[in-house]
Amino acid sequence: MPVFDLVIIGGGPAGITAAVYAARKKLDFLLITGDIGGQAAWSGDIANYTGYNFVTGPELVSKFEEHLKQFPVNIKEGEFARSIDKKGDIFEIWTSRGAYEAKSVIIATGKRSRELNVPGEKEFKNKGLAYCATCDGPLFAGKDTAVIGGGNSALDAALQLVRYCAKVYIINNTERLGGDTVMKEQAEKAGNLEVLNSSKVLEVLGGKVVSGLKIEKVKDGNTEIVELKVQGVFVEIGLLPNSEFAALAGKNSAGEIVVNADCATGIPGIFAAGDVTNVAEKQIIIAAGEGAKAALAAFKYLLVSGKLSQ
Amino acid sequence: MPVFDLVIIGGGPAGITAAVYAARKKLDFLLITGDIGGQAAWSGDIANYTGYNFVTGPELVSKFEEHLKQFPVNIKEGEFARSIDKKGDIFEIWTSRGAYEAKSVIIATGKRSRELNVPGEKEFKNKGLAYCATCDGPLFAGKDTAVIGGGNSALDAALQLVRYCAKVYIINNTERLGGDTVMKEQAEKAGNLEVLNSSKVLEVLGGKVVSGLKIEKVKDGNTEIVELKVQGVFVEIGLLPNSEFAALAGKNSAGEIVVNADCATGIPGIFAAGDVTNVAEKQIIIAAGEGAKAALAAFKYLLVSGKLSQ
Repeated sequence: MPVFDLVIIGGGPAGITAAVYAARKKLDFLLITGDIGGQAAWSGDIANYTGYNFVTGPELVSKFEEHLKQFPVNIKEGEFARSIDKKGDIFEIWTSRGAYEAKSVIIATGKRSRELNVPGEKEFKNKGLAYCATCDGPLFAGKDTAVIGGGNSALDAALQLVRYCAKVYIINNTERLGGDTVMKEQAEKAGNLEVLNSSKVLEVLGGKVVSGLKIEKVKDGNTEIVELKVQGVFVEIGLLPNSEFAALAGKNSAGEIVVNADCATGIPGIFAAGDVTNVAEKQIIIAAGEGAKAALAAFKYLLVSGKLSQ
Repeated sequence: MPVFDLVIIGGGPAGITAAVYAARKKLDFLLITGDIGGQAAWSGDIANYTGYNFVTGPELVSKFEEHLKQFPVNIKEGEFARSIDKKGDIFEIWTSRGAYEAKSVIIATGKRSRELNVPGEKEFKNKGLAYCATCDGPLFAGKDTAVIGGGNSALDAALQLVRYCAKVYIINNTERLGGDTVMKEQAEKAGNLEVLNSSKVLEVLGGKVVSGLKIEKVKDGNTEIVELKVQGVFVEIGLLPNSEFAALAGKNSAGEIVVNADCATGIPGIFAAGDVTNVAEKQIIIAAGEGAKAALAAFKYLLVSGKLSQ
């Protein structure tokens, strides 16, 4: 098997942009990804990708894919990285289907939603339970919904939902909400939003679809179990970086791969880009820019170390 | 005069994207710029802005401008920053037309190419003469091209061009090339690269497009004038950051404003994005991503310090 110049792991905005740049540099490379688009494919309306006034996630992803497929790119779709090893100068990438060798690697595997881990969650996923208000919120117009979480993502989801839902609850398991003051002020202004603090979700209830939540509520030192009737549940308790397979790379306490301003990790030859890294903001345009940086940094690394295949 | 939440200086891809994000955060802000588009407006064909397969500089800039003008943005066009002062908590931005006060500042004034200053340079700009091999190199596949310069940028450009050009010349006006040894070694290995040392470009020649270069060559103490036939000319004698006015911000020896991975400078409240910074690569998609980061970082700074106007 050939040793690739570069293997890019992940096919969201960061990985696709890295691939476009790698293709333009004529690197001998491979793109390994579960799907094309990543989380961007699940976004609703995107109004902040500069150059596009208004575009949906799937539309933007299809533009990205079209752009990528202008080049003769070797894409392994439906394949997932399991680990990366270093064998001398070469990296060995083990996947769900096999193994590849490469002189450099870009990790662009993004983040995933953290799960509740309560009974009913798996059963009702996409049957009333979702992880993205931007994507699925509009399906619950006129309905009662609950957002589970107490930080900025939960507030953001709730503030989107109050615009079309009859009633929105925030189920927060601490004594008061976290998140930005401005967002909390906005939440207070919304007439159809109710915050339930010190409330822990025990179970998602329903028949064919979600009908409610079983909640443990602490009030004045007493614990009571209540049932809340809702038709929609949004889990917004944070995101986890898809970095478990990359034991080799240095990570922060959140599991994000630590990069410098040029997308280099602590290991020469391994670069990372987009949501999987410690870069603070999760935005498509930022991930795309980081993907470009990572590809150009990988190219420079190969050039300077004399490893380039042609 | 009001104190703005934010003043963005520079209207290229970084500044425009920062403005789009600032507008979406409803910041009370001002964009001061000589023109809309910056260096991007002068690029030929852009094939690496993810989502657009092929677009010219002016087309992409007009998309950016259209996107920006969806918002009620206060733009001061044709105006240039002259200096930034700090007055207690407030920044004072002096321009070619007046002065503004702001609680935070994003510097996104980009770089300019150092010019050759020879006859034909201005006439053939974008007609065979360019300042960026990464951007415009692939248009010259199969052609003969010359890179003018003798340092790392010239070598970098040449090493990109040898991969698809028929023949590449480096026209260097000193006795031997500067730049990294590794890159010079790579240059020696390339079969289709020729270095002309002690050679000074006198004129860019052509009709409708570039057809060659008039060169003054010193050999064994004798000076001769030669004409070199090429269809493409890349001027790679360096870039200058437009950072002279920003004496306040920390800079490296190249005059670039030093930022961390989140676009913060050493001065709280002053952020910088895009080509004017120490981020290694000069690419539109990267500048746009950095602009988004800077705006979100400025927003966070205002929020956390309780300085937000509404």
